[in-house]
Amino acid sequence: MAKIAILGYGTVGSGVFEVLSMNADSVAENAGEPVEIKYVLDLRDFPGDPAEKKIVHDVEVILNDPEVSVVVETMGGNEPAHTFVKRALEAGKSVCTSNKNLVEAYGSELLKIAKEKKVRFLFEAAVGGGIPIIRPIKDALTADKVDFITGILNGTCNYILTKMSVEGMEFEDALKQAQDNGFAERDPAADIEGHDSCRKIAILASLVTGKNVDFEDITTIGISNISASDFAYAGKLGMKVKLLSSASYRDGKLKAITAPFLVSGDNRLFNVDDVINGVWIHGNAVGDLVFQGAGAGKLPTASAVSSDVVDAVKNKDTVYKLLWSDDKISPEDAGEYMFRYFVRVNEADKDKAEEVFGNVKYIEADGISGEAAFITGVMTENEYNEKSGGVDIINMIRITPDTNID
Amino acid sequence: MAKIAILGYGTVGSGVFEVLSMNADSVAENAGEPVEIKYVLDLRDFPGDPAEKKIVHDVEVILNDPEVSVVVETMGGNEPAHTFVKRALEAGKSVCTSNKNLVEAYGSELLKIAKEKKVRFLFEAAVGGGIPIIRPIKDALTADKVDFITGILNGTCNYILTKMSVEGMEFEDALKQAQDNGFAERDPAADIEGHDSCRKIAILASLVTGKNVDFEDITTIGISNISASDFAYAGKLGMKVKLLSSASYRDGKLKAITAPFLVSGDNRLFNVDDVINGVWIHGNAVGDLVFQGAGAGKLPTASAVSSDVVDAVKNKDTVYKLLWSDDKISPEDAGEYMFRYFVRVNEADKDKAEEVFGNVKYIEADGISGEAAFITGVMTENEYNEKSGGVDIINMIRITPDTNID
Repeated sequence: MAKIAILGYGTVGSGVFEVLSMNADSVAENAGEPVEIKYVLDLRDFPGDPAEKKIVHDVEVILNDPEVSVVVETMGGNEPAHTFVKRALEAGKSVCTSNKNLVEAYGSELLKIAKEKKVRFLFEAAVGGGIPIIRPIKDALTADKVDFITGILNGTCNYILTKMSVEGMEFEDALKQAQDNGFAERDPAADIEGHDSCRKIAILASLVTGKNVDFEDITTIGISNISASDFAYAGKLGMKVKLLSSASYRDGKLKAITAPFLVSGDNRLFNVDDVINGVWIHGNAVGDLVFQGAGAGKLPTASAVSSDVVDAVKNKDTVYKLLWSDDKISPEDAGEYMFRYFVRVNEADKDKAEEVFGNVKYIEADGISGEAAFITGVMTENEYNEKSGGVDIINMIRITPDTNID
Repeated sequence: MAKIAILGYGTVGSGVFEVLSMNADSVAENAGEPVEIKYVLDLRDFPGDPAEKKIVHDVEVILNDPEVSVVVETMGGNEPAHTFVKRALEAGKSVCTSNKNLVEAYGSELLKIAKEKKVRFLFEAAVGGGIPIIRPIKDALTADKVDFITGILNGTCNYILTKMSVEGMEFEDALKQAQDNGFAERDPAADIEGHDSCRKIAILASLVTGKNVDFEDITTIGISNISASDFAYAGKLGMKVKLLSSASYRDGKLKAITAPFLVSGDNRLFNVDDVINGVWIHGNAVGDLVFQGAGAGKLPTASAVSSDVVDAVKNKDTVYKLLWSDDKISPEDAGEYMFRYFVRVNEADKDKAEEVFGNVKYIEADGISGEAAFITGVMTENEYNEKSGGVDIINMIRITPDTNID
């Protein structure tokens, strides 16, 4: 009988409680022994709730109980999660978390402590919600060199962009609908400004490089500047706008970016719509793989956290491989990444734009006037910025090269 | 240093040799020690090949060498593969195989021997080629109950059906093109009659139920009866014809079928085209997941086999969970599965068909005359067979209910 504790009885924490109860038999079979939830830490009480009698308000009860071998952290945020997780690991307890902020900010530190203490620090749910991503990269693609990952990693943004694409909505209206439907938070900045997606690609990049990637080093552009007009042009091109988080790692060089991209029907993530997440991975032997599923939500996220609990219980005696070290790797200068660019300029600047960008491909969209829209040739971001400096740009969206950040 | 042997130096075997050489550093890191290929068994010699000096012609050299801890079986077929694999396991060597016939026919026997001998019998490549499928189900969805799997599991059929869909080709022409391009064998029966797909779903169903599923108990219908006319109607419906292999497992009851289905744009496998394989898995906590990638090919398949080698080397001392027992589980009678049916009848029988099927939805397609095509209501296969008994049917294709075999 393995005894565990859950820190935080919110959406994910209560989901873990539910999944471990609902599937107790298969969890026991896979873990090699039954898993009992001994404590649930929360400031609140939950009278009448199945967890009622497990609730404790003092983390010391959990940290000081030698019977508790696995701690599930589903509080979110940096503190007190970081302190609690660190102390749990130092007390020789494995930790399973859904907290991407924690993993991104303190991953290498916590992985190192876990290794020293011969326990586990697991975070399958931190990227892609319920989709198995961390474990396939770590345990399945073990004979491959993963050299490219791109993902739709934020369900809120994907929902908003899908609404804009399908229903011609403006950004603000789609955001409001997402909030009304519970797919976006009241303060949506972390999602719509791309920071959530960026933290996730930083975690994946750390996993692929084996080194510490800081999300603050990754160029991050959100979706709040995307308008219905952009989608009108995209529609004419048979394309969609998607918020992609990409990393490539070749010859020891990391490139990474989070930004809205125009993607064509050929792109393997083109059909990943609504709140669904998708991750496209390229390995030098396996080629292209795509994983899709629920990137958020109570039970899917809890499924991933609970699978970590099974892993921690089942593999408590096996050798632990450090996923990434605290050596830092910084992405190459994003100014040198090569893209084509979809550009909209004020009509008055059309000639000037043609002069600086040279041979461009114009696009027309129904009902839009007073501007010119075109696609440039391939150039670095630095070149683009230099050329566009004197032009009155309405908006610019990168166009994915579909295979790489070159 | 782990020493391994490869049985069979064909496409997959030479691919494993290549992957383990090309990615030797990451393989060593993930396995915890370097992996050396000590022997390659083949009847032929390979002068000038990188494997030249490893070639042996007598399997006894391998089976009797205590240094060899892992045997890779990439010969294909039942014999002598079965005998060699069984003897390797009995000699205390782990076995990694890409051979779906072997796994389907002898899986429970070989898994049992492996458990007794405390070694591994691994077969990630037997289903879905390079796509991680076995390992995610076994090691990632450990807190879920997988209750539904449907897959496009045969790249040859998917290539043929995609050609027919996109280019309006007839079956025979698309098959010939597949053969010319190396995507179909000269004797294509195992692929186009659905037996290959059926073996794969039998393996997945065994994994999900934990019991032995015999592919011969699964209703299997191939794609050789699908014509350009069927695709003309499908196009009018915004649908495609896909060869799906499905299994559902709820309340201890297994349902399984391999057959061509009409699938709509809502179906999660709708966009899995060409030689790509796709697997849609539903778990009671995680919801819907889709995995896509190369279902065949030298390096992708070798990637999966090589990841098994890493697993066998890395986890040689851990407890082995029996994936499925030799208890047999038979699918429920396929006559009781519920579908809607796309049906084409000779024009002379239109009234008779309407009489027996009741309220049907007619479809017209350009340039097709002398027949009537319609979609029936939902009914069991037994009901369909009874009703259609006296009607001159040109072709019938099941329509996927998109979520289940009901």
